Amino acid sequence: MKALVISLVAILSAAPAVAQPSEPVALRGMGSFHVGGRVVDVSGEPVRESKLPDGKTQKVDPNGSFLVEQMYVQYFLPAKQRGKYPMLMWHGGGLTGVTYETTPDGREGWANLFLRKGWDVYVSDAVERGRSGFAEREIFKGEPVFATLGFAWEAYRIGAPGSFQPAKDKRVAYPGMQFPVDDYENLVRQLVPRWLTTDDAILRAYIAEIDRVGPCVLVVHSQSGTIAYRAALARPDKVKAIVDVEGTLRGDATTAAAVKHIPIVVIYGDNVEKSEFFATQHATNLKMVDLAKSVGGSVEIMDLPAMGLKGNSHFLMMERNNAQIADIIDQWLVRKGLTGAVP
Amino acid sequence: MKALVISLVAILSAAPAVAQPSEPVALRGMGSFHVGGRVVDVSGEPVRESKLPDGKTQKVDPNGSFLVEQMYVQYFLPAKQRGKYPMLMWHGGGLTGVTYETTPDGREGWANLFLRKGWDVYVSDAVERGRSGFAEREIFKGEPVFATLGFAWEAYRIGAPGSFQPAKDKRVAYPGMQFPVDDYENLVRQLVPRWLTTDDAILRAYIAEIDRVGPCVLVVHSQSGTIAYRAALARPDKVKAIVDVEGTLRGDATTAAAVKHIPIVVIYGDNVEKSEFFATQHATNLKMVDLAKSVGGSVEIMDLPAMGLKGNSHFLMMERNNAQIADIIDQWLVRKGLTGAVP
Repeated sequence: MKALVISLVAILSAAPAVAQPSEPVALRGMGSFHVGGRVVDVSGEPVRESKLPDGKTQKVDPNGSFLVEQMYVQYFLPAKQRGKYPMLMWHGGGLTGVTYETTPDGREGWANLFLRKGWDVYVSDAVERGRSGFAEREIFKGEPVFATLGFAWEAYRIGAPGSFQPAKDKRVAYPGMQFPVDDYENLVRQLVPRWLTTDDAILRAYIAEIDRVGPCVLVVHSQSGTIAYRAALARPDKVKAIVDVEGTLRGDATTAAAVKHIPIVVIYGDNVEKSEFFATQHATNLKMVDLAKSVGGSVEIMDLPAMGLKGNSHFLMMERNNAQIADIIDQWLVRKGLTGAVP
Repeated sequence: MKALVISLVAILSAAPAVAQPSEPVALRGMGSFHVGGRVVDVSGEPVRESKLPDGKTQKVDPNGSFLVEQMYVQYFLPAKQRGKYPMLMWHGGGLTGVTYETTPDGREGWANLFLRKGWDVYVSDAVERGRSGFAEREIFKGEPVFATLGFAWEAYRIGAPGSFQPAKDKRVAYPGMQFPVDDYENLVRQLVPRWLTTDDAILRAYIAEIDRVGPCVLVVHSQSGTIAYRAALARPDKVKAIVDVEGTLRGDATTAAAVKHIPIVVIYGDNVEKSEFFATQHATNLKMVDLAKSVGGSVEIMDLPAMGLKGNSHFLMMERNNAQIADIIDQWLVRKGLTGAVP
């Protein structure tokens, strides 16, 4: 971190405070690390044999000591900090930190865009996913789940249930869709297997990240909405705000009181009412708005369609108007006092 | 790629041609993409059930269309190019592109260091690993293999066979070891499961990367040495050089003739003769040196101990002298005419 310094060019001295995508940007460091993990000793398990395509047999001995449940984090630090705290970006289920990188159609994602706005950006792969690795079946219970080609299209509101077809020209997206539908396959390429039994390990690693990085702002998506709320309860002194993109806040009056000092906003795209899953989630989060208010806290819901932004799917960070939505989030963080001189 | 421009600071105009780790560096872009992949239709397979810890049962339906065998690539482009061609960094078995990022003890890895030297750097996760994702057992044959806590220590020549102990103070490394042994666990955190049946899919994706990026220099490690040689045979017009860190070149007189115009160097650390695996690999590569010479080609072997660099393990890019070894590689590329004006 100390070694890599990318400074502002002279030309930038005349540029506006928030760098635009076409302008130079400056980093004071970039790198990566793993946090967390624990050693698990497996013993007494039978050695398995599985047949290989060439007719040979592969022996798999699941016994031994393994380091598991660590989490990968990559960071980019702008030379000119504007965010008071680092921004940790947490992805959704079946995805990795790639969620926040280059969009499926090759434009800058939120990692670059928030970096340009002066935020220290930390992008991680949740435990079990991507560069965090996964563990033996003796350690990770159950089996990994694989998404089919059409799963994300229908489940995440790019098109209605039944609207996906393998042939590109036969797929029907919702009207005015902001998701780059012609490059849908590049979203599918980002999908990785997920387990259904690892939420606690994922939470532990995220808390380890918070403890390593320090006070921070969380930008989270989908599955990690619930986890971010739990992380805030575990580290109420370190989580300074939660920007939750279509994730569920699961709490009650007690939890609402415990995090009432933490500003929270949940942001929704379009066509939420057409998905039973997201309509239910939205209703759950509305209850949390009321609960927060009743204890003097603040949970807000931003429905983008009500603000005039139509046609967004579940993937706000990848869509044609992803920069506009990043601006809206940044402005919310400004209103919460989270930009300015670094404490 | 067009959007993010990080330019040289004024101060750099007086700096030496090759930026040092403590100096500013300048990027003209950074981002990521996936290459390759194919749609596989699985049908007629039984729905499986697996028991979850809470007593419930998880149903796993392996049927459907899946997009598999894609590969993740992340790139960093310096403003001031000095390498004539992009440098593709390919990692070894059971690892990901993290191999080339921050070292286990927190210093800059080869991705940053070669970026500083003016090389466009592309770091990928091989098919099945990391952010490339993996596929169902109906598609990836056999089972993934998991490395134990001590595996890398002994297999990759940090210490002799039998020298690893779970307790840090009881481990015995080879004398003068350059690997940051106190941070060995951070190497283990980088390890991910591997399959033994996916080499062809890995190769296909690497070729897709070469086709997308264009003429390039390959910096490869361990398992990807063999794959890089195959990629060079598949794209002899696009692979401009191979820097092979302790990987096996598997060829014969015919292949040697086919790639005789491609400069190849294999670099070895210390204590190779104490490992049956690496001693055999070294002997195999020595035969390729002779074969190349017999057809007018060039395969070189650099034994670092013979050059005065003692104590290196299998992980040259992570070690205390990783910057010195990067310099040696860069100088070899200079001698091969691979720096200067971009073609």
